[in-house]
Amino acid sequence: MTRLSVGLIGLGRLGRVYARDLSTRIPQVRLVAVADTNGDLARQIGAEFDALATDDPSALISNPNVDAVVIVSPTHTHRPLVVESLRAGKPTFCEKPPALSLAEAETMAAAERQTGTFFQMGFMRRFDPGYAAAKKQIDEGRIGRPFVFKATSRDPFPPSLSYADPKSSGGIFVDMGIHDFDLARWFMGDVAKVQAVGGVLVVPELATVGDHDNAIATLTFADGRLGVVDLTRNGLYGYDITTELLGTEGTIRVGYIRETPILVMTRNTIAHDTVPYFMERFERAYTLQLQNFADNVLQRRPAPVTIHDGVEALRIAVAAARSCATGQSVDVRSTT
Amino acid sequence: MTRLSVGLIGLGRLGRVYARDLSTRIPQVRLVAVADTNGDLARQIGAEFDALATDDPSALISNPNVDAVVIVSPTHTHRPLVVESLRAGKPTFCEKPPALSLAEAETMAAAERQTGTFFQMGFMRRFDPGYAAAKKQIDEGRIGRPFVFKATSRDPFPPSLSYADPKSSGGIFVDMGIHDFDLARWFMGDVAKVQAVGGVLVVPELATVGDHDNAIATLTFADGRLGVVDLTRNGLYGYDITTELLGTEGTIRVGYIRETPILVMTRNTIAHDTVPYFMERFERAYTLQLQNFADNVLQRRPAPVTIHDGVEALRIAVAAARSCATGQSVDVRSTT
Amino acid sequence: MTRLSVGLIGLGRLGRVYARDLSTRIPQVRLVAVADTNGDLARQIGAEFDALATDDPSALISNPNVDAVVIVSPTHTHRPLVVESLRAGKPTFCEKPPALSLAEAETMAAAERQTGTFFQMGFMRRFDPGYAAAKKQIDEGRIGRPFVFKATSRDPFPPSLSYADPKSSGGIFVDMGIHDFDLARWFMGDVAKVQAVGGVLVVPELATVGDHDNAIATLTFADGRLGVVDLTRNGLYGYDITTELLGTEGTIRVGYIRETPILVMTRNTIAHDTVPYFMERFERAYTLQLQNFADNVLQRRPAPVTIHDGVEALRIAVAAARSCATGQSVDVRSTT
Amino acid sequence: MTRLSVGLIGLGRLGRVYARDLSTRIPQVRLVAVADTNGDLARQIGAEFDALATDDPSALISNPNVDAVVIVSPTHTHRPLVVESLRAGKPTFCEKPPALSLAEAETMAAAERQTGTFFQMGFMRRFDPGYAAAKKQIDEGRIGRPFVFKATSRDPFPPSLSYADPKSSGGIFVDMGIHDFDLARWFMGDVAKVQAVGGVLVVPELATVGDHDNAIATLTFADGRLGVVDLTRNGLYGYDITTELLGTEGTIRVGYIRETPILVMTRNTIAHDTVPYFMERFERAYTLQLQNFADNVLQRRPAPVTIHDGVEALRIAVAAARSCATGQSVDVRSTT
Repeated sequence: MTRLSVGLIGLGRLGRVYARDLSTRIPQVRLVAVADTNGDLARQIGAEFDALATDDPSALISNPNVDAVVIVSPTHTHRPLVVESLRAGKPTFCEKPPALSLAEAETMAAAERQTGTFFQMGFMRRFDPGYAAAKKQIDEGRIGRPFVFKATSRDPFPPSLSYADPKSSGGIFVDMGIHDFDLARWFMGDVAKVQAVGGVLVVPELATVGDHDNAIATLTFADGRLGVVDLTRNGLYGYDITTELLGTEGTIRVGYIRETPILVMTRNTIAHDTVPYFMERFERAYTLQLQNFADNVLQRRPAPVTIHDGVEALRIAVAAARSCATGQSVDVRSTT
Repeated sequence: MTRLSVGLIGLGRLGRVYARDLSTRIPQVRLVAVADTNGDLARQIGAEFDALATDDPSALISNPNVDAVVIVSPTHTHRPLVVESLRAGKPTFCEKPPALSLAEAETMAAAERQTGTFFQMGFMRRFDPGYAAAKKQIDEGRIGRPFVFKATSRDPFPPSLSYADPKSSGGIFVDMGIHDFDLARWFMGDVAKVQAVGGVLVVPELATVGDHDNAIATLTFADGRLGVVDLTRNGLYGYDITTELLGTEGTIRVGYIRETPILVMTRNTIAHDTVPYFMERFERAYTLQLQNFADNVLQRRPAPVTIHDGVEALRIAVAAARSCATGQSVDVRSTT
Repeated sequence: MTRLSVGLIGLGRLGRVYARDLSTRIPQVRLVAVADTNGDLARQIGAEFDALATDDPSALISNPNVDAVVIVSPTHTHRPLVVESLRAGKPTFCEKPPALSLAEAETMAAAERQTGTFFQMGFMRRFDPGYAAAKKQIDEGRIGRPFVFKATSRDPFPPSLSYADPKSSGGIFVDMGIHDFDLARWFMGDVAKVQAVGGVLVVPELATVGDHDNAIATLTFADGRLGVVDLTRNGLYGYDITTELLGTEGTIRVGYIRETPILVMTRNTIAHDTVPYFMERFERAYTLQLQNFADNVLQRRPAPVTIHDGVEALRIAVAAARSCATGQSVDVRSTT
Repeated sequence: MTRLSVGLIGLGRLGRVYARDLSTRIPQVRLVAVADTNGDLARQIGAEFDALATDDPSALISNPNVDAVVIVSPTHTHRPLVVESLRAGKPTFCEKPPALSLAEAETMAAAERQTGTFFQMGFMRRFDPGYAAAKKQIDEGRIGRPFVFKATSRDPFPPSLSYADPKSSGGIFVDMGIHDFDLARWFMGDVAKVQAVGGVLVVPELATVGDHDNAIATLTFADGRLGVVDLTRNGLYGYDITTELLGTEGTIRVGYIRETPILVMTRNTIAHDTVPYFMERFERAYTLQLQNFADNVLQRRPAPVTIHDGVEALRIAVAAARSCATGQSVDVRSTT
């Protein structure tokens, strides 16, 4: 088996999961190099997985032993790293969101067009067995034509203020909502108009950085069909990602709220646990996504999730944030 | 509408429910008389529902204004009252179990044969919308031919010692199990052999009256198919009646464990309530059963649940109790 | 027991259910008169329940044997009938929505103020054991302070065009949404702003009368908390009413989607049935609501659901319809 | 990291899963050799995972590069291979059941005692996150003292006749039931008495080899507590492993019946898929079990599942088979 030699940039929480996946769970890949601006961290992870370590992402990108680059560094670094990697001719995977601004994201899209280098956008939900099965069933006509898209995303607790700061996270619509906006496009097509509301209802500190802890966005798709996305950074009981497609022949609901298959039945009460967080819910999806990236590169298949998908999901998120700020509905297609 | 004038004998817990049903929920019936050996109780209930009250069941039975008799008095009184009522030519309904001994039950069966008077045995589960729908679907072939019968009956807490005393309740197999044994016969046919175990595992006082708090009986049907019934007097979390039929084309499971349609989702836990007790679970079944009795009498239809059904369910229960006592499997058909 | 002699106006689908409830399920009430402009229907129902029948609602209202009036006639008749009944000094119950326009509803409120006659607005969900238990638990602090309200209402199939016509039904926001808007107020308080979208996505004929088959409304409560209501006239799989309250200490979800307690498990598939329609889902709530009305009148207790509740829920519905028509968010409090 | 060099014997269905796990999912292990009497198969799997391949298990065991041996060959080969491996001083893992007869299993136990070599018995359910969490909660007192053990094991379809043949599989009680009998001992302690019934109810061909397709065993534990295990080789709808412990303070139920987190809601029906088979249900448990084996060997920890556990679970299975054959209850402790 020819293995793809991968370099990984960014060793934060998710980066370390990617390091483990690339090293131990994806047979067609070898993790050959890791980079993080925190050099100590890079060296530690490099040692753990027998990979070259550097604090200079550019060195990793230009390393001739690196066949392909996986980028999971902070969002504001995506544009320069992706552009550099594409220009170096290295097939590149980049975690969502593509960037904090549409201008940056479009620069990335332009680099992809100009270089013709393979690029795959990270939206792991598309690789979750639940969402993948739902897509397949819908494509096969199981529920007829979907006409309403409903999505709920609940984090169990708010992130740190420094993470939530819209200057680095993009704010609740970009940081959390982009997953649901991508699902909306995947299942239903482009969105024409968005109306959104948001508020600081539970975590007053979030107001100091300008983010919301709860938000709701209604979507009007280009052909008039409807959608709604509700987001909370304070689900409290656990991590709950639920999506519904109402179709002319039926409805599909994806999601679950119990982690361990145990019911505890005590006096007058029956209880179970909850899904702790995104790693438990989407562990398999993350692995399958990287596997798919490696397969696509090795077999010269087109990327199933493109920079265009990243740009357009970001466009909805940016439009939603503007609608929320202005109280007006916002035309997505003219949002820049 | 011609209404059936009904007399009700026995005003204990269930008797009072029957009084309410007969008075207010069954349009085709009029409750004209109530009897209980506790005359004060009879007078109180009689006043509440505008019915004649007496402490003498025989007076009720012989009252010419009473068209039909419903008997829900303690089990040891079933035989004499049923026989008297049948001999008086009054269509009679009697709550399960028919009697504490097979000899008594067979005397009742003989009286029914000799008098030709209408008799209906009370097994309310057959009138529960869940069980009725399961029966219909199985009869229509939805799961092919059922080959295994599984039933679980859990009371939330043990009854009083005086109630549990096998001398009045018949013991756990007769008192609780008879419902499941009747379902077994209804869904699968006659039982040839039973093996049972039981124990006093949680409520030591039960040992003083000779009852068990937990028991399990395996059934071999006449044609070799299999069944299992497990019983507990100490379900604790709530009342849980679950029945499964495994068939050649599928399985049907009847039962539920949540009473109120509420999920409460708190930190790391999702919980709901439980079914409190049999009145909540089978309230509708009790009403439908009495309605069915009235319709059968008024429209001269045969009883869907006969004294034979009562005798045979009791026979399995008695055989199970013997198997439990002896540690040997017991032939049901030769049990007397 | 003193019984309340009730007259019932309106014998359509729901009216006949009320007739049955008033006659047979509510001991403290006697149904003494029924009225419907369809005199044949009135006579038929009157005969069935031993009640006086008339095709003239005014005659029923002025009948001295009628202590209290229950109005379940078409919405456009609510205002004149309620005003007449209140002026006649008869305690009055009126089914939702109070009227098709705010002006009419406010006329009804004025009549109630001027006459001081008892009036109770019909919002049966408040009497559903599920919603009532949720309210109780929230009031007791089980989930802390609720900060997001989410409601989904799905009818299994669209109504007739003549029913759906906004000139008689008020349109999807008034006809269906008003239940959710009332719940929003009941659980969270007054709504300041609403944004809504709607469309004819599945049932093109609805466009001919000017109604929508699907709609979504986001709510901003007076204190900034958020809500969202999604409505479909074409749930298809069944009737599904689900409501969630997200609170600072947890979330409560009310609703269920299985009618009969049966799982059917066939090759690779486990299935159950669905809730057919509102009568199955809220049968008990309707009965409890009328019982509550009778108790309130007999015991001179204030109405738990007032004309003010009707007016304010209607105000949100009217605001939502306007937002949907204009694409702008609408201030609820200034909506007239 | 010091890695354990493991040799794997047996490359059937489960053996290939173990090969993949040992090669790619367990960082602390290296798969260095594989053996199967089918030499072509051995060479193919060896090539796939860069491991030495042989058709001679003894050669693998004596290979000095093999630190530890994992045995997942057919049951009748367990005894000689385990004994040989233990005598060679190689830490050994052997898949359940230990052997087809108690005599063989006891020979294995004797070899373990005599050599003092590390041995771990394979009962993967103990490593399933659901069962492990249940055990932990019960040990922590969450349900008080368990007094009834209930277990259901359903295969979705019968195995091949050659597999089912009791001469190689041990029959339904040994092949399937041993998992439940091990759980019974793990949760509750030793079993004193077993009563069992079985039959060929659905798959008549099974009669030709002398196996049953359905069976039920009731257990009386040494201290009088009760248990029941029901087994079917024809669950049909899917793979369903459900276990309940009733305790003095509550009940714990472990199990699930939906594989993919999708509900499909069509007209009047809501459906989901089922768990296909044991690999989907216990994939993680198998991996965790091998990981645990490697950790125990590397860290010189005692085996959490011993040959004694294997012998005693087999003893219950053999006793159940005898009870089923004779119709008598069987004393487990005197079963040889």
